[in-house]
Amino acid sequence: MGYGVVGKGVAYAINQYGGRIEKRTGFKLRLLHILDLLDFPDSPDARLITHDVEDVMGDGDVDVVVETMGGLNAAFRFTVSAFERGKHVVTSNKELVAERGPELLKAAAERGVNYLFDASVGGGIPVITPVSECLVAGNIASITGILNGTTNFMLSHMKSHGTSFAETLKLAQEMGYAESDPAADIEGDDARRKLAIISSVAWGAFLDWKTIHTEGIANVTLEDILQATDLGRVLKLVAQSRRLARGGSEAYVLPVMLDRRDPLASVDGVYNALTVGGDLYGDVMFRGQGAGMLPTGGAVVSDIIKAAAPGKRCAALCWDRDAAINISEFSKLIHGFYVRVESPDPDAYRDDFFRRFPEARVLPRYADGGGCDGSAVTPRTVIFMVPSASEGEFIKKIADINAAVAGSTVRFTARLPLTG
Amino acid sequence: MGYGVVGKGVAYAINQYGGRIEKRTGFKLRLLHILDLLDFPDSPDARLITHDVEDVMGDGDVDVVVETMGGLNAAFRFTVSAFERGKHVVTSNKELVAERGPELLKAAAERGVNYLFDASVGGGIPVITPVSECLVAGNIASITGILNGTTNFMLSHMKSHGTSFAETLKLAQEMGYAESDPAADIEGDDARRKLAIISSVAWGAFLDWKTIHTEGIANVTLEDILQATDLGRVLKLVAQSRRLARGGSEAYVLPVMLDRRDPLASVDGVYNALTVGGDLYGDVMFRGQGAGMLPTGGAVVSDIIKAAAPGKRCAALCWDRDAAINISEFSKLIHGFYVRVESPDPDAYRDDFFRRFPEARVLPRYADGGGCDGSAVTPRTVIFMVPSASEGEFIKKIADINAAVAGSTVRFTARLPLTG
Repeated sequence: MGYGVVGKGVAYAINQYGGRIEKRTGFKLRLLHILDLLDFPDSPDARLITHDVEDVMGDGDVDVVVETMGGLNAAFRFTVSAFERGKHVVTSNKELVAERGPELLKAAAERGVNYLFDASVGGGIPVITPVSECLVAGNIASITGILNGTTNFMLSHMKSHGTSFAETLKLAQEMGYAESDPAADIEGDDARRKLAIISSVAWGAFLDWKTIHTEGIANVTLEDILQATDLGRVLKLVAQSRRLARGGSEAYVLPVMLDRRDPLASVDGVYNALTVGGDLYGDVMFRGQGAGMLPTGGAVVSDIIKAAAPGKRCAALCWDRDAAINISEFSKLIHGFYVRVESPDPDAYRDDFFRRFPEARVLPRYADGGGCDGSAVTPRTVIFMVPSASEGEFIKKIADINAAVAGSTVRFTARLPLTG
Repeated sequence: MGYGVVGKGVAYAINQYGGRIEKRTGFKLRLLHILDLLDFPDSPDARLITHDVEDVMGDGDVDVVVETMGGLNAAFRFTVSAFERGKHVVTSNKELVAERGPELLKAAAERGVNYLFDASVGGGIPVITPVSECLVAGNIASITGILNGTTNFMLSHMKSHGTSFAETLKLAQEMGYAESDPAADIEGDDARRKLAIISSVAWGAFLDWKTIHTEGIANVTLEDILQATDLGRVLKLVAQSRRLARGGSEAYVLPVMLDRRDPLASVDGVYNALTVGGDLYGDVMFRGQGAGMLPTGGAVVSDIIKAAAPGKRCAALCWDRDAAINISEFSKLIHGFYVRVESPDPDAYRDDFFRRFPEARVLPRYADGGGCDGSAVTPRTVIFMVPSASEGEFIKKIADINAAVAGSTVRFTARLPLTG
């Protein structure tokens, strides 16, 4: 259901690698129907296209339904309907899994079928299966990842090519890495949905994606990226969830200036990566192509085989809305801060800032815009680095300074992880 | 069976995390017997120790037998015996899987039980399951890894601390990272057994570990490591297998000077990593702790759960001795070469070398042993870099030069991967 980029990748993988799959797994995959609103007269699978969902649901030969439609409403209805007909469902639809995962997993379990969604997080990187089946013995303490390919491509490209945010976004759209409406990627919603899904799998408890503190990269400039380099760091959009040793949980998606020796710092371009930290296995990192027709299509196909294999897969995946993970600790987190401010009175701002953050320092500007998009460089801009503060303290003090020096605005904030 | 480091890790994981495992998977694990030659009166599981294998095999309550004895003979016999009693076997014994994998997988399949060995490659890093179950759709073209924790710890430590090979080996032994007889690690046999296992899984065809061209790091010096740094590279013991586009396969374990931006170059200490390259998923990398009581014990436990779950797991794992992978292409591989030579007549050696490798260059020595173990620095040592040659051509020409300048010996060779 859904013959877009991922759906086409699934069809391609089945057509192209069916023989290998049968030889390796004993399963012969046959593509029986393709449900889509459009016709695809030039597709090799044109004869399988249907506009009537009943062609899929009413066909007793259909064991597994693939949902790559995206969206919430029709996808939800059709998925439930497949379960009711005793069919397994495999999806790449992260919106739906993040929003309605608990109900759908429960509905699948009640009907004795599987609902699998490895392709919804990390594209072609196997993450759901390793976390739910291989790292199942110990406790998982943290999940840290670069989970959005669009923003990671943009940040990497700005760094390596010295381009502005606007021209890089345009390039990403031309190359098919960004949607015409890029908000879900740029604002961090895509990454937080994926973080919610993998965290729910790791902890067997529902993490509501809307509760995850999220800041995107809409306001990043080339100068911010160059400043990170000067600090021996790399700016990345990082998604993290943690169970804290003192109790409580936290989860966020934030622009973070990682130490350049951090294994995640070298994950560039459309690559994604995920590090799972725990008390038994230590840190395990998974890295690969986080999106794209073939990797994501391939991930769906391996879930099709799992869904069809005897035995229920759901046990390790089920998570309950009642056992929700409560995120309450964000304001207590302690980070270093990089903050770029615009103020009509930079001197007054600087004075007030140092009064409240005596340990802070001002970073030298790229004053002549050398290599930068000059637009961001105005004498009214000041960039500070605060070595260490809690999120709550930082937000409070910044609000106080902004109130004291009228007309001042924070343009961009990035976190610096504290070492040790 | 076997209460050594890994066996103790398995017992610890079951005792410590049994509740979590039951909650997440529905399986209640009970440790019934521990077979070992020794007694462990101070162990929390002392009462489970037995010296009679029949206590394990004859107990109808035993569903899964864990073999962490190591070695080939008793481990093989006991494993077959477990299959004959209808018990699944989970192992971390890479010697046995590499040597007798095909027979054991066949014997398990005939009895309708599972033989699982995720812990035999990569310790706590999930690699066998992701490769056999998640990356199953496309073709796998290459496997590249750092698969031995001992040698990787030593190379990293020499680089970061400027220590000699001998003192680093001693330290590794004191820290428990190296055996008292370190040959299997240092000479590369451990890595090639692991490469053979994961390659056999990836291709569903038997790769005999003894056919893999292997050079270890026994002759590496601190100077070689510092020379790599000067070349913008990092020296690693790399295991690689590939199916070549022109047909044929190759596999090797070699000291390789990786470009420092290669994701494997930053895998330091006791960490291991594996990159799987293919036509559908692109490059997927797995990284984590490649050894140790807890990670490896945890990997065994997740296989216990898989083994006991309904449904046979063997299909994707079975590989046949008849469908063996024939490695024939090593001499045709083209690399750059770093080669350190000792000769009684360095000038003559240099002249002859340049006659045969006109593109070569001589690297400046760390002449005063600055930061180096001075012992290796003699005026009779010459280090060359050859930008590109086939393995066959290189070996032939070096043999000719050594014959021409009597008494000359190659002390150490590392490969430089060609880019692009």
